[in-house]
Amino acid sequence: MDLILDILSTMLSQLQKPTLAFLIGGMVLAALGSKLEVPQPVYSFVVLLLLLKIGIGAGISVREADLVALAVPAIGAAIAGILIVLLGSVTLAKWRGVSNMDGMATVGLFGAVSASTLAASMAVLDGEGIAYEGFIGALYPFMDIAALVTAIVLARMSAVRQTAGSVQASGTMTLGGGAKSAGGGAWDGAMVKGILIDTFRSPAISALILGIMLGLFARPDAVYASFYEPLFRGLLSILMLVMGMEAWSRLSEMRKVAHAYVLYGLTAPIVHGLIGFGIGLAAHHLTGFSAGGAVLLSVMAASSSDISGPPTMRAALPEANPSAYVGTSTGLGTPVAILSIPLFMALADRFIGF
Amino acid sequence: MDLILDILSTMLSQLQKPTLAFLIGGMVLAALGSKLEVPQPVYSFVVLLLLLKIGIGAGISVREADLVALAVPAIGAAIAGILIVLLGSVTLAKWRGVSNMDGMATVGLFGAVSASTLAASMAVLDGEGIAYEGFIGALYPFMDIAALVTAIVLARMSAVRQTAGSVQASGTMTLGGGAKSAGGGAWDGAMVKGILIDTFRSPAISALILGIMLGLFARPDAVYASFYEPLFRGLLSILMLVMGMEAWSRLSEMRKVAHAYVLYGLTAPIVHGLIGFGIGLAAHHLTGFSAGGAVLLSVMAASSSDISGPPTMRAALPEANPSAYVGTSTGLGTPVAILSIPLFMALADRFIGF
Amino acid sequence: MDLILDILSTMLSQLQKPTLAFLIGGMVLAALGSKLEVPQPVYSFVVLLLLLKIGIGAGISVREADLVALAVPAIGAAIAGILIVLLGSVTLAKWRGVSNMDGMATVGLFGAVSASTLAASMAVLDGEGIAYEGFIGALYPFMDIAALVTAIVLARMSAVRQTAGSVQASGTMTLGGGAKSAGGGAWDGAMVKGILIDTFRSPAISALILGIMLGLFARPDAVYASFYEPLFRGLLSILMLVMGMEAWSRLSEMRKVAHAYVLYGLTAPIVHGLIGFGIGLAAHHLTGFSAGGAVLLSVMAASSSDISGPPTMRAALPEANPSAYVGTSTGLGTPVAILSIPLFMALADRFIGF
Repeated sequence: MDLILDILSTMLSQLQKPTLAFLIGGMVLAALGSKLEVPQPVYSFVVLLLLLKIGIGAGISVREADLVALAVPAIGAAIAGILIVLLGSVTLAKWRGVSNMDGMATVGLFGAVSASTLAASMAVLDGEGIAYEGFIGALYPFMDIAALVTAIVLARMSAVRQTAGSVQASGTMTLGGGAKSAGGGAWDGAMVKGILIDTFRSPAISALILGIMLGLFARPDAVYASFYEPLFRGLLSILMLVMGMEAWSRLSEMRKVAHAYVLYGLTAPIVHGLIGFGIGLAAHHLTGFSAGGAVLLSVMAASSSDISGPPTMRAALPEANPSAYVGTSTGLGTPVAILSIPLFMALADRFIGF
Repeated sequence: MDLILDILSTMLSQLQKPTLAFLIGGMVLAALGSKLEVPQPVYSFVVLLLLLKIGIGAGISVREADLVALAVPAIGAAIAGILIVLLGSVTLAKWRGVSNMDGMATVGLFGAVSASTLAASMAVLDGEGIAYEGFIGALYPFMDIAALVTAIVLARMSAVRQTAGSVQASGTMTLGGGAKSAGGGAWDGAMVKGILIDTFRSPAISALILGIMLGLFARPDAVYASFYEPLFRGLLSILMLVMGMEAWSRLSEMRKVAHAYVLYGLTAPIVHGLIGFGIGLAAHHLTGFSAGGAVLLSVMAASSSDISGPPTMRAALPEANPSAYVGTSTGLGTPVAILSIPLFMALADRFIGF
Repeated sequence: MDLILDILSTMLSQLQKPTLAFLIGGMVLAALGSKLEVPQPVYSFVVLLLLLKIGIGAGISVREADLVALAVPAIGAAIAGILIVLLGSVTLAKWRGVSNMDGMATVGLFGAVSASTLAASMAVLDGEGIAYEGFIGALYPFMDIAALVTAIVLARMSAVRQTAGSVQASGTMTLGGGAKSAGGGAWDGAMVKGILIDTFRSPAISALILGIMLGLFARPDAVYASFYEPLFRGLLSILMLVMGMEAWSRLSEMRKVAHAYVLYGLTAPIVHGLIGFGIGLAAHHLTGFSAGGAVLLSVMAASSSDISGPPTMRAALPEANPSAYVGTSTGLGTPVAILSIPLFMALADRFIGF
């Protein structure tokens, strides 16, 4: 009972924090039909600056980090991404009325990470004065890529199995991803390589990797401290505003999709966050991973990709219906994940202690 | 003679202030045919940031004020803002050769408040050792928003009425506000409601209201102090540059009616200050509002918005000519208001007593 | 040997500095096929802010500068621009297989100045704590306009000479720039005037001149210190990122163009920088021009115009092939100029002393 009260009280006070307040403000504006909008080019640039900031910060930290201390959470992050996709492949993707392709695309996005949600949770922890490992931003790609690759490989394997049956029956072929070769077992490697290349070339992952490389190999500390760091909170408030407006407009699209997606979008972030928290707790006992780090790992696991994931899915699984996976991820997954940040903070405080 | 020299010297020093210098710089560039431009998406974003900043600042001020002691002067401030606009709507806006849209935009700025003039008068009172209520700063948004909304609603109503007339005459329909109904006398109520809804949904007013709500109900103080506040002056300089370029392209229209704006800019601050003083005097008799408070209420009413108003007008009444409303407000209204501070102090001493 | 070691060691340490690191990062991203991009409207705005910052800073400095001390480097800058164009007119423009029009357009861009390269070198000097004359930014238009006007006048003169021959042969006329008159010697003045007007109206030069005028005649010191100055390094990092990506994509275009352009693009920046350094050294002995100032004059001479020049060339020499002059300038000239900043620093340290 105490834990639940703790969580509720933390959630109520968090709703007043700028990060969540701007998200809710954006939702209210969209609900009231406001014509306010952040122009697309500016929005892209805001996201770029945020990702560069997270990447540079992570790179600078990794430069001075204990690589062993980094290795355990990094492996944990990849495991979390794979577990989330495997879990979804036997729940949402097997649901009656949900096509396997649509289901796996959705599951892949829920396994991937939302850079903006991660940024939001970092801002919340900073606001509370809660410490976390500086290299956390460098864990993002581990979970993100593990989840996307697993989901796409499973979806393609399933499609090939179906096609193998239907080809003999109907004699027709559907056009798949460009990486699919004719052979039986040989296509796996080429396809995985294609997915990895596509993922690294996506704007979100490139910006993050660029930032990490700059932080690692250049000395961007001065420009980081004078520009990227001070602008971070403010740009994040703009991002939250846009995401709130976006989430509300996606909610209406959601009504057309099966109830299975609504149920998944509302519950999966919590379940995934708990998986992430379990892995963070294990890393805490193994290498002294911090309570703040465990919160951020939980939020990464809870979040679903809203920036880097959708283009990857569109390229890799063109047969999947974007209104299903983007709607579920951006309309439900992201707000639920952001609103559950206080839950993971309460858990970390109780089981590790800030 | 001394007064005229004073005004001239104040005006000359105002022309060197960044706000006016960037405005004039933009006009000169446009006059010389420069191809310099601020891209539209960036400009929209600059305006959004300015409006959020103004709204959040106002919301934070109201949050910290004593709400009961605040109520009477706040209602008085809102009444002053509305009265000033109504007065202008039957004088300047009806002037022969002054377009109703340009006139109402100017009148709206004269009803709104100049924060820097308010700060100047506070400094004068402090220097004289004259006390005033601490919550005075929180009155600003009441007068400001009442005046801006009244002016915008009146301008929009007038535009819809003109469109309604032209429909009967020509038999063609132009697209007006979405709220226009078919009926003859019945449309007024529905139309006003529609305009109010449209006004609140307009990007400028939504951003302002969103900022106020965030300032009131969330705790955006940190992001306000680290992002919105420091960027304010700089973004304003960009806004002034764009408005100057915009103003020049419409200046030829101004030459026919310039004298009306000069007359209004020189006399309206005194008349508006007297309205503010009357309301302050009434508040003194009702709730013991101080003489210093009455002076500040007079100065608020006398001042015209040079910072918050122009972006709002630019966004809400894009048809209005900035060279009319910004020129009149910033070039004439502000120096006249500052120079009339001693007049309101003399009145307060005579009718209330310091 | 010592000098070469000095240069190599300075270059290696400079590659880690944010300015060059972001440039290289952008090139690597483009080389790896990243889909990251900075939206065009945001990029234009970033360039505008950088140019305003450089202009305002220069204007504030000129306001308090010794005009005689300014005159010598200004005349030197104009001489450097003219010398670079004359040198190119007898090398690249006379090369076998290079059309005179394409060659002169390229040479004009290499004589003109890259505002972003100048900004980059200022950031490098600031980072090293090396002082330079505040008015340096005001030298830019002297070199820029001298080079562009010289190149265009020479190209037009050459074209008229050729046309005079071919008209008699074929009896047809091709449409040239609007400034070309029918007479023999009379067209010179009108065309030069046209080029000067076009150059001053170009966004880059207008922004710079506007900044200088504001710095000279207004008092923008507060907004400069609170907005333009703090954002400078960060916005420059974005600019470098974009220029790196742009340079890489132009490099592949370069393969189609004659080897003469590649050779010119790789060597001319160094030769031009040495011309600039010689003039800076002379100014040092004449008026005590600083070592930092000599570095910046060298970089200005080494740099080739990537923002203001191409539109001027397109308007003035429509017959010239943009993939030749833009490719050579942006793909080779700019990165070589930026990467040679440490060379000029080493020279200035050796021959003048920081």
